[in-house]
Amino acid sequence: MSTNLTARPLTKAEFTPYGQVIEKSGSESFLINNGNCRRHHALAEADIVEEGGKVGINIFAGQPYELPLDLGMVERHPLGSQAFYPLGDKNWLVIVCRDDNGTPVDPQVFLAGPDQGINLNRGVWHGVLTPLEVAGDFLVVDRVGEGNNLEEHYFAKSFVVTSG
Amino acid sequence: MSTNLTARPLTKAEFTPYGQVIEKSGSESFLINNGNCRRHHALAEADIVEEGGKVGINIFAGQPYELPLDLGMVERHPLGSQAFYPLGDKNWLVIVCRDDNGTPVDPQVFLAGPDQGINLNRGVWHGVLTPLEVAGDFLVVDRVGEGNNLEEHYFAKSFVVTSG
Repeated sequence: MSTNLTARPLTKAEFTPYGQVIEKSGSESFLINNGNCRRHHALAEADIVEEGGKVGINIFAGQPYELPLDLGMVERHPLGSQAFYPLGDKNWLVIVCRDDNGTPVDPQVFLAGPDQGINLNRGVWHGVLTPLEVAGDFLVVDRVGEGNNLEEHYFAKSFVVTSG
Repeated sequence: MSTNLTARPLTKAEFTPYGQVIEKSGSESFLINNGNCRRHHALAEADIVEEGGKVGINIFAGQPYELPLDLGMVERHPLGSQAFYPLGDKNWLVIVCRDDNGTPVDPQVFLAGPDQGINLNRGVWHGVLTPLEVAGDFLVVDRVGEGNNLEEHYFAKSFVVTSG
């Protein structure tokens, strides 16, 4: 038997334990460039372990997933935060877990809109990049450089994620 | 009399003196996530002066400009690099200058596509964010925090930028 998980809308309040939601809505902002540009300021900050590492800017081109999906694995990056922002116009899925002494527990599934990015705090367990419907590109800000920055955890019993 | 500048397509080769072009085309990449995602890796790196500063992720919502436009001013950020990636589907304009003992000279105008971002090296003179046609949102990765990170330069004689 697998456990069912249902997706709920991504909100800043609910995502706070895991990281930041990168979106204009509800953000601190101010005008720059003689009034021609509104800066939605410091929606997230990179947090990396610098020994041999830098903050890199990357593009991830992800294949789409379909719901329901089997969640068998999550991963985390002990050496740095990781931000994702969608470059297309489709919804995507964000899956995160709490950590219990090195083990991911209590998976949470959020449905993110095309105008919502996230920044995962350093070391937060999460599912792999999950575009829905169609292949999608994402701008990704994370640590690049030497060091082992990947831990994977395979669940003994997989979860089934549904749209709710 | 003002001097005319014409825009030319943004390419990695021509942009090298000023920073990096953030685009999938021609990049180093490899598959991750069990083959479901292609990582176009370290297309740019943030370079910031850390005293009181962090790498921030922001959204700039810019008003559109029309060509021909008058270029009267450029600016630079002595404490950090600054990356822009368009979130819409329109072209945008990138203007950069060489530095000659603290003075911006020899403005260059690049027409960037909707799948092209840039990362300006720390201290590179540049024009303000310039969406074309319609208002546009951009994901911006730059230094946030204390310190004076803005220098502006007003040209004695403005330039007129045309589409070429």
